[in-house]
Amino acid sequence: MRVAALAGGTGAAKLLRGLAACVPGDALTIVGNTGDDAEIWGLHVSPDLDTVAYALAGRLDVARGWGLAGDTFRCLEAMAGLGAETWFNLGDRDLATHLHRTRLLRAGVPLSGVTRDLARRLGVAARLLPMSDDRVRTRVRTPGPGGDRWLDFQEYFVRDKALVEALEVVYEGAGSARPAPGVLDAIAGADAVVVCPSNPVTSVGPILAVPGVAEALGATAAPVVAVSPIVGGAPVSGPAGRLMQARGLPVSPAGVAAAYAPWLTALLVDTRDASCAPELGALGVACVPADVVMTDRASEVALARRVLEAAATAGRRR
Amino acid sequence: MRVAALAGGTGAAKLLRGLAACVPGDALTIVGNTGDDAEIWGLHVSPDLDTVAYALAGRLDVARGWGLAGDTFRCLEAMAGLGAETWFNLGDRDLATHLHRTRLLRAGVPLSGVTRDLARRLGVAARLLPMSDDRVRTRVRTPGPGGDRWLDFQEYFVRDKALVEALEVVYEGAGSARPAPGVLDAIAGADAVVVCPSNPVTSVGPILAVPGVAEALGATAAPVVAVSPIVGGAPVSGPAGRLMQARGLPVSPAGVAAAYAPWLTALLVDTRDASCAPELGALGVACVPADVVMTDRASEVALARRVLEAAATAGRRR
Repeated sequence: MRVAALAGGTGAAKLLRGLAACVPGDALTIVGNTGDDAEIWGLHVSPDLDTVAYALAGRLDVARGWGLAGDTFRCLEAMAGLGAETWFNLGDRDLATHLHRTRLLRAGVPLSGVTRDLARRLGVAARLLPMSDDRVRTRVRTPGPGGDRWLDFQEYFVRDKALVEALEVVYEGAGSARPAPGVLDAIAGADAVVVCPSNPVTSVGPILAVPGVAEALGATAAPVVAVSPIVGGAPVSGPAGRLMQARGLPVSPAGVAAAYAPWLTALLVDTRDASCAPELGALGVACVPADVVMTDRASEVALARRVLEAAATAGRRR
Repeated sequence: MRVAALAGGTGAAKLLRGLAACVPGDALTIVGNTGDDAEIWGLHVSPDLDTVAYALAGRLDVARGWGLAGDTFRCLEAMAGLGAETWFNLGDRDLATHLHRTRLLRAGVPLSGVTRDLARRLGVAARLLPMSDDRVRTRVRTPGPGGDRWLDFQEYFVRDKALVEALEVVYEGAGSARPAPGVLDAIAGADAVVVCPSNPVTSVGPILAVPGVAEALGATAAPVVAVSPIVGGAPVSGPAGRLMQARGLPVSPAGVAAAYAPWLTALLVDTRDASCAPELGALGVACVPADVVMTDRASEVALARRVLEAAATAGRRR
């Protein structure tokens, strides 16, 4: 069974660990969000790609949900001593990833090539693709005393801890970005497409904003199954609630379904949210109740199985 | 007393610590070699400038003679895991210096501005200048099985541990380099110019190769006093012997004096080498016996005092 998965960071990493336990590495293609990539200390950081790669390599700091387990922060301390901004935590071992990536990018290797190289060196069996080799940057408009301000996603999310109001979200550069090599083929050739339980606006949204991706999702014969990142009216983690509001979406499984409605086959929702089935049905989306909150490795695998079962049940769409 | 000092790395750092104890910070200008600068992992590393800055900040790893005391090497280990070359040891805290420098250089700040900024942030009172803001690279021609090879200085010195024969040394880019702002003025306006006990070929040589520097040394009214890095027919440390041979210089205090003869006033030589006085005299250089091997902070200060005394004894040249 060939699976293509659209992925953000922390939430996606959990489900992907589960999927990787169910599907051979060469049958799993992950399309990762790069809209929250950032330049930190002059280095190109791809937080979502790294979180997924580290998770699949068994090296993610699970407690934090980012970075490498057991990492140290000596360079960060020294950067603080030199007056650099240190709100984005780069660990000493983690730094190697960004140094390696930045050097290859400057040498002209596209991000997809760099990502393949890093994944291979980390021992990731699945195929990890950035959504695009072109620069796309998620930016958030927030209110400020002297007028609205546009923040880079990491400024909004990490520096300002997503505490400020989000008025608008845009994906700068998306309009002229091309899907990375393999992205459209993975969607078209999959037996199941999985949308991980990631923020629909700032994790999955940038991927969908790359011209051709939403069209491929609409055209694929594979069922498209998503897992709701919203449980009981609130996100499992992160600022999805505020950002869905900014996008005019209800903060509910129905809001998630609405964001994906044109091409979504089924949405796995928490058993507590099973009552949303009629709402989803009205959008043409099948409602599949499940335990969507992953608290350990066993629940990750169990949810992955449920996702693949839901896809098998839905069958081919055309 | 205004002092201008020409400096390489480890040996220079010791004498400079001594000089900094004798002269107020704003009266000491150090012109550092950048011919052995290197790009490591995409970062601009200035080994000699850093060794001097760390030493004057009291943070040099004295046992190694490079890097920061107590540094760790987690990033380096991770870089090795990613297949990067790791023969040039960059510590985790040390990395911050190179990240900071690289980012500022890419933003268009000249190396002299970056060096001033780093020195200030590290708490260095003396004025530290790179010899030039322009790129100069010391390269060493070595014999190879398939013909001669040109190595960057760090490849020759660190990677290959200076074990291969040096046939020729060139300072790539020196011909069109300009002295960094302040370099010529410091030499012209000094009461004493000090040439630190550094390798005459690959530490002081690149500085002298920048057009205008040797002329300034010839024209300054200040006495120019050097400390011999050669004691008893061998260098105190490093590959100065082989490199002086490659340059056709005898590996002796007289060889050092010959390299600097056109403008050198006096050379401090080890008391064991006092018999070279006639040879030096023939070159027009006064021979000043001293304990030139610095083994602790007290001997650094003592030697610095001897240097300043020798300069005062020589008096103004014109």
